Amino acid sequence: MAINVALIGFGTVGSSVYQLIQSRQEKLRVLLGQEIKVTDIVIKNLNKTRRVAHDVRLTNSFEKVLATERIDVVIEAIVGVEPACTYIEQALKQGIPVITANKALFAHKGSVLKHLAEKHQTGIGYEATVAGGIPIIRTLLELMSINHISKVEGIFNGTANYILTDMRVNNRQFAESLKLAQSLGYAELDPDNDIKGIDAFYKLMILCETIFKQSPEWNDVSVTGIDQITPLDIEVEALRDKRYKLIAEAQYNSDGSLHAEVGPKLIDNEHPLYGVEGVENAVTIHSDLLGALTLKGPGAGGEATASAIFSDLLALFTQNSKSKASDAFKPVTSASNV
Amino acid sequence: MAINVALIGFGTVGSSVYQLIQSRQEKLRVLLGQEIKVTDIVIKNLNKTRRVAHDVRLTNSFEKVLATERIDVVIEAIVGVEPACTYIEQALKQGIPVITANKALFAHKGSVLKHLAEKHQTGIGYEATVAGGIPIIRTLLELMSINHISKVEGIFNGTANYILTDMRVNNRQFAESLKLAQSLGYAELDPDNDIKGIDAFYKLMILCETIFKQSPEWNDVSVTGIDQITPLDIEVEALRDKRYKLIAEAQYNSDGSLHAEVGPKLIDNEHPLYGVEGVENAVTIHSDLLGALTLKGPGAGGEATASAIFSDLLALFTQNSKSKASDAFKPVTSASNV
Repeated sequence: MAINVALIGFGTVGSSVYQLIQSRQEKLRVLLGQEIKVTDIVIKNLNKTRRVAHDVRLTNSFEKVLATERIDVVIEAIVGVEPACTYIEQALKQGIPVITANKALFAHKGSVLKHLAEKHQTGIGYEATVAGGIPIIRTLLELMSINHISKVEGIFNGTANYILTDMRVNNRQFAESLKLAQSLGYAELDPDNDIKGIDAFYKLMILCETIFKQSPEWNDVSVTGIDQITPLDIEVEALRDKRYKLIAEAQYNSDGSLHAEVGPKLIDNEHPLYGVEGVENAVTIHSDLLGALTLKGPGAGGEATASAIFSDLLALFTQNSKSKASDAFKPVTSASNV
Repeated sequence: MAINVALIGFGTVGSSVYQLIQSRQEKLRVLLGQEIKVTDIVIKNLNKTRRVAHDVRLTNSFEKVLATERIDVVIEAIVGVEPACTYIEQALKQGIPVITANKALFAHKGSVLKHLAEKHQTGIGYEATVAGGIPIIRTLLELMSINHISKVEGIFNGTANYILTDMRVNNRQFAESLKLAQSLGYAELDPDNDIKGIDAFYKLMILCETIFKQSPEWNDVSVTGIDQITPLDIEVEALRDKRYKLIAEAQYNSDGSLHAEVGPKLIDNEHPLYGVEGVENAVTIHSDLLGALTLKGPGAGGEATASAIFSDLLALFTQNSKSKASDAFKPVTSASNV
């Protein structure tokens, strides 16, 4: 019997996941102990041509998939809170585990969906929601088991970091660098989420829930974009070996309060995120035993993000094959960090 | 019933492990589902005073510990191949899992000990042998499950990296920087292992066995130290934005051959290891889906290394609590990378 996958979305991430399941069939069969098969792909526009095997059903009705097929796992790779949230709730309520790459959704609804998964004795994996392929969630859960994490800070938006790097290196105006980022496919046509810090804010909120089991009041979090920085600002600071980076950070204080902030920050060459350039993402975790651990890598891209999704998939179907799916996504989370 | 620990060695790492087991008793009990207790500490010199609880047995005979006590896990934190290897073999042959922080031992005997552990249906954890607290082994095993890793490169010796950084920043001669490193407790009185690249070589060999399931012929690996680099070399290159770093790297070629090398390398500011300064360690993993992932953090120190040991401990006693201990250290290793 195969593991049947329903894939929601067929954009950059969704199509990479599909193609890798096809091309690494044999490797996955060995790892999972059984075949894995994308049986259904849920898309919005059925008229667009998609290159998929002829036995894959293309549909615009996720409800119909759940009503008529045996689905073992749902991989959700679309954008925005709805309809993703409704789809995921439907799956979890049937006890079907879900893997999501959708940061806006998980920032808004992660806590609710984790509880729903627990209630229905299944799991929800979200490694791909933060920093693309960088295994940040798994590393945090692992570290947290014995370390106390006091602070996390990161560069979570590759587009903004690309623009800041390009402005400094090539002495360009913000608008020029943005245009370049758009022409290279990094920035969306409506780039507000990237340059105003909203995307980085979503990822920070997901990390807050993961580490501190709480989010700050969203309205209390100062979120500033990079669109007011001038080439002159950047040039003057570069002469002093300082760089502007769009930093998202959250700190747990000894009085039990949680402070979170997103905005351009001037950092010097001693800062662990100083060398993070171009479209890269990085995160520094500050913990009591280990000290500062930094992870740096590609924060976007179909294959890198698919790598994170596969990591969730394997956790789900191999690590605790004899126990409930609900355990798979919390290998070491029984400890509270706070 | 408690988990009984026999600790071998009471130096920087051993004493940190002991103290953390004492001070985090409650947290560990929650995580492990039972109490954990250091029952025996094996030391060379029984005449030296040690600050341990009165019910901990101090002994110089590991054989006697194994013969008279019920031991559930051995944590080995001494230096050099022997007597560590003999001790570990004795434990594994009785089916007792072992966690080691001993890189010289594991470089020489890792492959043999892994097989011995498997044969006796138990496990051997070695996260702490490479790059101190940085979770490199676990991250590699996780990535390898679906990624093909083609190359690994790292800065694995904090002392050498400290000296190179100090020579550049403070314009000092090699001998002066070395003396400073020794006065700060970074370098041993006999610093050859650090500055001649031997320590970095050991760690590279451990990574080769982990990733590629093979080591190159040790005699074929070029290992060069940093002691021939002059302040003038460093200064001239710094003007061109280049830095000398002691890089250990291994690359798997498409013809099936494995090339490994340790030596000072001139890297530019685009290189992922350019910003690794002072006593820090870092490693960059090159894989086909994810691309380049870099981990950076403290490569030594009692608490950081203890953090890695606890990570092995939790993997052993929690992740697969219902399955054999032998599975605990290979969550996703069924896939071969090559």
